[in-house]
Amino acid sequence: MRRLDEQEIRDIANGSAILGTGGGGDPYLGTLATLEAVTKHGAPQLMDPEELSDDSLVAFPFIVGAPVPGVEKFPFGNELAQALRTLEDQLGRKVDAVMSAEIGGANSMIPMSLAVRVGIPVVDGDLIGRAFPEIQLTTLTLHGIHASPFALADEHGNGVVLNVIDNFWAERIARAVAIEFGAVCVGVAYPISGKQVKVATLHRTVSFAGRIGKALREAKAAKKNPLDAVLAAADGVEVFRGKIIDVERRTQRGWAVGEAVIAGSDRFTNRVARVRFQNENLVLMVDGEVVASVPDLITILEADTGAAITTENLRYGFRVAVIGIACQPIWRTEAGLALAGPQHWGYEVKYVPIEQGAGAA
Amino acid sequence: MRRLDEQEIRDIANGSAILGTGGGGDPYLGTLATLEAVTKHGAPQLMDPEELSDDSLVAFPFIVGAPVPGVEKFPFGNELAQALRTLEDQLGRKVDAVMSAEIGGANSMIPMSLAVRVGIPVVDGDLIGRAFPEIQLTTLTLHGIHASPFALADEHGNGVVLNVIDNFWAERIARAVAIEFGAVCVGVAYPISGKQVKVATLHRTVSFAGRIGKALREAKAAKKNPLDAVLAAADGVEVFRGKIIDVERRTQRGWAVGEAVIAGSDRFTNRVARVRFQNENLVLMVDGEVVASVPDLITILEADTGAAITTENLRYGFRVAVIGIACQPIWRTEAGLALAGPQHWGYEVKYVPIEQGAGAA
Repeated sequence: MRRLDEQEIRDIANGSAILGTGGGGDPYLGTLATLEAVTKHGAPQLMDPEELSDDSLVAFPFIVGAPVPGVEKFPFGNELAQALRTLEDQLGRKVDAVMSAEIGGANSMIPMSLAVRVGIPVVDGDLIGRAFPEIQLTTLTLHGIHASPFALADEHGNGVVLNVIDNFWAERIARAVAIEFGAVCVGVAYPISGKQVKVATLHRTVSFAGRIGKALREAKAAKKNPLDAVLAAADGVEVFRGKIIDVERRTQRGWAVGEAVIAGSDRFTNRVARVRFQNENLVLMVDGEVVASVPDLITILEADTGAAITTENLRYGFRVAVIGIACQPIWRTEAGLALAGPQHWGYEVKYVPIEQGAGAA
Repeated sequence: MRRLDEQEIRDIANGSAILGTGGGGDPYLGTLATLEAVTKHGAPQLMDPEELSDDSLVAFPFIVGAPVPGVEKFPFGNELAQALRTLEDQLGRKVDAVMSAEIGGANSMIPMSLAVRVGIPVVDGDLIGRAFPEIQLTTLTLHGIHASPFALADEHGNGVVLNVIDNFWAERIARAVAIEFGAVCVGVAYPISGKQVKVATLHRTVSFAGRIGKALREAKAAKKNPLDAVLAAADGVEVFRGKIIDVERRTQRGWAVGEAVIAGSDRFTNRVARVRFQNENLVLMVDGEVVASVPDLITILEADTGAAITTENLRYGFRVAVIGIACQPIWRTEAGLALAGPQHWGYEVKYVPIEQGAGAA
């Protein structure tokens, strides 16, 4: 267990934005809100999963809904605490630690913001190793563990508790509720034991995000190429580079859905890439061929600064690099691909690991 | 407190269908489901509101959603019991009696069906004195009493509990959940004390429905005019008569919304009436003039049998009588009209009590 200082929190936010593949909420606002909570309540404690006692109770706070309107709705402080209390009331006991449901801009920060407010630690890990836009897409679903009881809260003081039969129903009902709550709200779900954390979650992904953010920061300070630093720290590969020439984006059933079109430059000159997204980037096509796809990570970075661009911040004219990072191994299993592979998102393509697809590009 | 026999249950169902103004769920299926439950579990006990002890706990089970798909989904037995248990868990105590949220075909039967299953009485009364398609439209809202905690359940075993800040939010979130649950589900809400039942609900409206149903049955047996019997028992007035020449109906945000067009006959020959509905009949226009409107009751009956026709059963060619019945006095207060008057439904007309509007027709 160690206390995180402001620089580490910023590093984690910046690294999480890169692993968040364009989603997980706005990293800038998430960071501001968390630093404000830290100033008020003290520094967050980051705890290794192995430090948890087997019978401790861990829960996962996160933002539900489309990122676009969420921008105006931060910081969610009261709602998070309310949702946690509601979950505790349901379970008849206190939650001992919180953990990130996903690694993504704001959703990596939300647990810290809540943890300092209620005085419990944050566990170093998450349920995806990236961000995904649907609640059932977690390692816990692959382990047969329920998202319910699942508490939702909005900024008006409204609360809802789901006790649903599987995690697909959790997604379906939570999204409908989030839409009514103004497109975005907070949830605290997946209450599990310390023992379950040890066997069914992804460990030390928060630290991993922090190392990526740190590499980016140090490269900038040393006037080195930030993109190279990110690729080295994240074990990623550049799969496209160019200028955004079109962005189509709409809010559809509580998601920001759309496509960015990028005209190639440098070694990609005369080629055109399309990144399709649903909150997160899902598929990269170059000249009509799928080069990278979920569950691997596809992130669009500012070419000059190496900073991640969320899907809601993609704009015409941005000069960008598209990078690919191998997903966590569990997503490449048969069950992992059945849950979150390209077919789940409506792409009738065979999943090709980024290491091979990137070579093809 | 008295036990209801099968004939009384049928009378209540038929009378409720008339007071249900076309909504409240299918009376035929509601009756079948209730009689099945009665056969299995015994006769329901009907209790006068004055028999309740002040500190007893009363709750209101009902169907949420559009009536059209509900037809296939009866009888809701397990869901009702599950929703009641969920509510009891939330409150930490048992519910002592149930009561109808509204007087309408199925929603008058639902409390009996649940009551016999769990062995508690039904209180003789309701929250509207008719059926309304939105959860906040009750006398309890007018008395500042919350619908929350509010338990919803579907036939798959999914459960949701709402703890929302007001009854408009209850409607909004419950409807969104019902839509995800396949357009229709059950809810148990508005937990109140016996004391609150005494001051803030409508008393003996179940008995009133029973008297209307009985009058209809006895008129048929005596080969008398059933329509006259209904009008006498319900203190209603015939406001139109004719043949349905068009029905437009669509499911919109969990409601059956539409219009029936009726070509006049008898003393209404050469006139055309339109009945607009949203689950329930809302407005009657004759030759473009509003003749009757919410909150007064507008019911379409089969001209020859006097049986109520629900909005989902309106069909081309039916020969019908449209009757109007004065609403409960609380709906004619300033607060009642602000909550459920014509403007609430998008009609920019001044409310004219049925007694005056019917005279104008």
